[in-house]
Amino acid sequence: MSKAQKHRGHHKTPVVINRDGSLNIHRPKQKDRFFSDLYHYFLSITWPKFFLILALFFLVTNLFFATLYFFAGSHALDGVDTNLDAQRFIDCFFFSVQLLSSPHAPVGTLSNLIVTLQTYLGMFILVIVTGLFYARFARPNARVIFSNFAIISRYNNKPCLVFRVANERLNQIVEAHMTLTLTKNMTSPEGETSRKFFNLRLENDYSPLFALSWTIRHFIDEDSPLFNADPKKLEQEQSVIFASLTGIDDTFSQTVSARNVYRYDEIVYNKRFKDILLWEEGKVRINLKGIHEMDDFLSTAK
Amino acid sequence: MSKAQKHRGHHKTPVVINRDGSLNIHRPKQKDRFFSDLYHYFLSITWPKFFLILALFFLVTNLFFATLYFFAGSHALDGVDTNLDAQRFIDCFFFSVQLLSSPHAPVGTLSNLIVTLQTYLGMFILVIVTGLFYARFARPNARVIFSNFAIISRYNNKPCLVFRVANERLNQIVEAHMTLTLTKNMTSPEGETSRKFFNLRLENDYSPLFALSWTIRHFIDEDSPLFNADPKKLEQEQSVIFASLTGIDDTFSQTVSARNVYRYDEIVYNKRFKDILLWEEGKVRINLKGIHEMDDFLSTAK
Amino acid sequence: MSKAQKHRGHHKTPVVINRDGSLNIHRPKQKDRFFSDLYHYFLSITWPKFFLILALFFLVTNLFFATLYFFAGSHALDGVDTNLDAQRFIDCFFFSVQLLSSPHAPVGTLSNLIVTLQTYLGMFILVIVTGLFYARFARPNARVIFSNFAIISRYNNKPCLVFRVANERLNQIVEAHMTLTLTKNMTSPEGETSRKFFNLRLENDYSPLFALSWTIRHFIDEDSPLFNADPKKLEQEQSVIFASLTGIDDTFSQTVSARNVYRYDEIVYNKRFKDILLWEEGKVRINLKGIHEMDDFLSTAK
Amino acid sequence: MSKAQKHRGHHKTPVVINRDGSLNIHRPKQKDRFFSDLYHYFLSITWPKFFLILALFFLVTNLFFATLYFFAGSHALDGVDTNLDAQRFIDCFFFSVQLLSSPHAPVGTLSNLIVTLQTYLGMFILVIVTGLFYARFARPNARVIFSNFAIISRYNNKPCLVFRVANERLNQIVEAHMTLTLTKNMTSPEGETSRKFFNLRLENDYSPLFALSWTIRHFIDEDSPLFNADPKKLEQEQSVIFASLTGIDDTFSQTVSARNVYRYDEIVYNKRFKDILLWEEGKVRINLKGIHEMDDFLSTAK
Repeated sequence: MSKAQKHRGHHKTPVVINRDGSLNIHRPKQKDRFFSDLYHYFLSITWPKFFLILALFFLVTNLFFATLYFFAGSHALDGVDTNLDAQRFIDCFFFSVQLLSSPHAPVGTLSNLIVTLQTYLGMFILVIVTGLFYARFARPNARVIFSNFAIISRYNNKPCLVFRVANERLNQIVEAHMTLTLTKNMTSPEGETSRKFFNLRLENDYSPLFALSWTIRHFIDEDSPLFNADPKKLEQEQSVIFASLTGIDDTFSQTVSARNVYRYDEIVYNKRFKDILLWEEGKVRINLKGIHEMDDFLSTAK
Repeated sequence: MSKAQKHRGHHKTPVVINRDGSLNIHRPKQKDRFFSDLYHYFLSITWPKFFLILALFFLVTNLFFATLYFFAGSHALDGVDTNLDAQRFIDCFFFSVQLLSSPHAPVGTLSNLIVTLQTYLGMFILVIVTGLFYARFARPNARVIFSNFAIISRYNNKPCLVFRVANERLNQIVEAHMTLTLTKNMTSPEGETSRKFFNLRLENDYSPLFALSWTIRHFIDEDSPLFNADPKKLEQEQSVIFASLTGIDDTFSQTVSARNVYRYDEIVYNKRFKDILLWEEGKVRINLKGIHEMDDFLSTAK
Repeated sequence: MSKAQKHRGHHKTPVVINRDGSLNIHRPKQKDRFFSDLYHYFLSITWPKFFLILALFFLVTNLFFATLYFFAGSHALDGVDTNLDAQRFIDCFFFSVQLLSSPHAPVGTLSNLIVTLQTYLGMFILVIVTGLFYARFARPNARVIFSNFAIISRYNNKPCLVFRVANERLNQIVEAHMTLTLTKNMTSPEGETSRKFFNLRLENDYSPLFALSWTIRHFIDEDSPLFNADPKKLEQEQSVIFASLTGIDDTFSQTVSARNVYRYDEIVYNKRFKDILLWEEGKVRINLKGIHEMDDFLSTAK
Repeated sequence: MSKAQKHRGHHKTPVVINRDGSLNIHRPKQKDRFFSDLYHYFLSITWPKFFLILALFFLVTNLFFATLYFFAGSHALDGVDTNLDAQRFIDCFFFSVQLLSSPHAPVGTLSNLIVTLQTYLGMFILVIVTGLFYARFARPNARVIFSNFAIISRYNNKPCLVFRVANERLNQIVEAHMTLTLTKNMTSPEGETSRKFFNLRLENDYSPLFALSWTIRHFIDEDSPLFNADPKKLEQEQSVIFASLTGIDDTFSQTVSARNVYRYDEIVYNKRFKDILLWEEGKVRINLKGIHEMDDFLSTAK
């Protein structure tokens, strides 16, 4: 055993996993390149923050241009009251805000130049702001719920990992694909610990039409990386299962995707999902809220 | 046989399939998350409904702002007749509608503030509305017709499932891919009934150029999930075949897709598609409307 | 031999192929569904036709609204000369054209209503027109040239089909994929003639960076559908080879594609492409225009 | 050995590779087709050049229309001072710039026609300019750094090529795929030298979640094209390894990609990447800037 390995031995779980599947590692904030990341930033913030930033930006730029018009002189804007400075600044501000629709008109080359500048600058800002606004609004998204837990149990008399997904929307996701990946800590003979990924083969990884619910199964045979896995081992290796769904939304005609993570402590044993189809007065109803409900596997099979 | 299985036995066809391939299951309407689903909603409704909602929304918001201008006082809008309340409200309404191009001008800080508010709100609504309008208009779509029936017959002396697709547009779909999936009810030894998917291997699942018509064949050999299938068995298992076509539209330079479903009662036996190529005065013509036409397989082969 | 086959025997080449790989079959024009195909239509026409249609549409709608304003009465537009009918119609026309920026103003509820209607209608038309205009302008396209001919010759002492592609732009296409498909007429024992597709395996179907030129080779071994093919047989079967290239344009960050077709008479034998790299004064230059040039295979190898 | 081969023998490295993986070959500039390449051009230039071209274009078109208004006569624009020619031209220029919001109004059919022309022309230019502006701004991009060097060393006691990538953004790239391609010069028995591509199989080419860093390994077994490779041989063959990463940005919901090239002289031997996880006061921190740092492989393993 090398020195490096021994040193690492002091940290029992060198890489600890969060509930969302990310690593529990502090990451120093980096000075981001401003322009290249602006678009990314405005797509990632919340709606209230988005509008707050817009409102502040709107206020600051108009105060700036109001100041320009104010100092352009008392005759720069036609019809603006020139006696009272406070009122004149307010008038300049509203002129800046309404610019192209203002009843006032710029007088002289200087104020015309400022108006021209503001018009073109404003146009570019308008394009960015409205483009961002629409890009946020129109982002294609799927409303897919994954069962809270994945179950390791038996199906067709074979050991099996199973979980469920449901489509919350009243539309159809066509050509749905599911990918299941196990990731866990492994240490090489050279003493390097790293996260390894293993694809889990599914009974069915393709569904031509995903409208209501879909039960996903991985049979744990000898080739499976989950073969002989038990809760203790899964925790030791900080195991996490990533479930990733992609498909085409019939309404958008666009690709949508959804993801979920099952951490080692979100995998339960010898349970079984309750049926979510309900028979009421001869009609079949589906209860999507029951997608998380399980009962004991052995009691129903006896 | 477990108790659960016996209970299920009372419902002969626990999952019944609709003509469009969806399950005949009632789904309780869920309260949708408003904002996140608005975009989806506006893309899924019909054109008349879309314009009706827009017109109502236009009316309501302008009445709202007209009321604001009305109560901002009789001198709030320059040049608006202040004697008659009814006429003044109409003037306020038209001011609100034409806002930036109105011959009237807001007077005083209050009405200027309302105008500013309406201008920016209106801008965001305009972006959403026109964006939605264009997104609806410009959705890439394919005009592909599938033959009404799929045929189980013989080809090259082997049993074979066959259907046809035709491209209705005068353009070309390049790099067309076809996927065929059989789905049917199956019950596990544990007594769980669920829908299972089986990919059907095609003679050709790729066509570099799909301009007119394409005949799709699946040979039913021993590996096929349709091996030894007969109409009775297909109905018992509520079998459905999903056909899914994707490709690149040469005009749009965008991916387009089309789908069709053949339910167990849309599969016919020992028929054969009629030729849709017609020879008229030495020229070859294609009759796309004849894509559904079949004649008896045996009579032509005798 | 069945009767059907004999009947078909009269048409020696029932399906004849065009130079662009499409079938030489007349297709009756179908009445297209208007709205659903408008977007497609406007993307497929030429630029002059596009602008001509826009100009006509602009003229007709403005004449229509000018007529409405004209008949709304001589006092409907403020400041419009009411004495001379001809001049008044011209004024109405220019009012309609400039609408929101016109120095004239609508007077009365009726003309205000028409203005409101035209404003909103105009807005939707504007969105469609400018959206179409930009969609045409911004369509991602590749500028890839394929060699005029494909060559069947020997490489590494094995029979081989080879052709070249060159990237005409000064950018890079990354992650380029090439697909090669042979399509030819085949007749089944049941007497049905149809086009069959065969994928041709490539020496390299993936290039991580396609900046200049790329030579594509398919080795004709015993598994190849071109095994033992000769010019006569290829013509009899109306053989066509589709070459399809996709990749990501580094500038657009978008997928681009290009295609070419080699008909049986665009395949030559025992030739060899001339080198397009030129050594001039110690520097290497590439001559993309020489991509089509071939010399005799045997003379250079002797 | 053929004559052609001998001739080629004079150029020791007929195809020399640049640091970015492109070939060191001079390419004569081709006259590009103007319109078809405009979009491509405006996306590829830098931001300052983009704005400079816009400003020049703005100036030229407005000078052009100012000249038209100027020569339309001294009464063509209402309220424009007609005494001084210089001032009148400036007024015409500002009228052209502000067009729809100018306090002046066109008088007479001629100036109205020019205004109409400029309005519609301006609208189309505005759409192109703002569309280009937004397309540049909103291009989805990934901020992925690749380690400066790739290492050939041992891992799990097997020879192995290894490099690292890090995600610089505070977001997640999901469903990340990595492709590794070796390209090198090869000469056929017929004497044709060309670049050949070889896919390098990876230990893991898929990561469901790429948030921080990812170590990529290719084991050099007997099937690997790098088997028995040494620095001298790699340089002789002008070997280059292309690494290409694609994935879905969780914020954009869009596919992003990143690429890097390891030239023969960017591959080092018997090194090992330093750990970038730092333990500070019981917390784990990641040091993305250390992604390039290596130490000697043998010293740590002793």
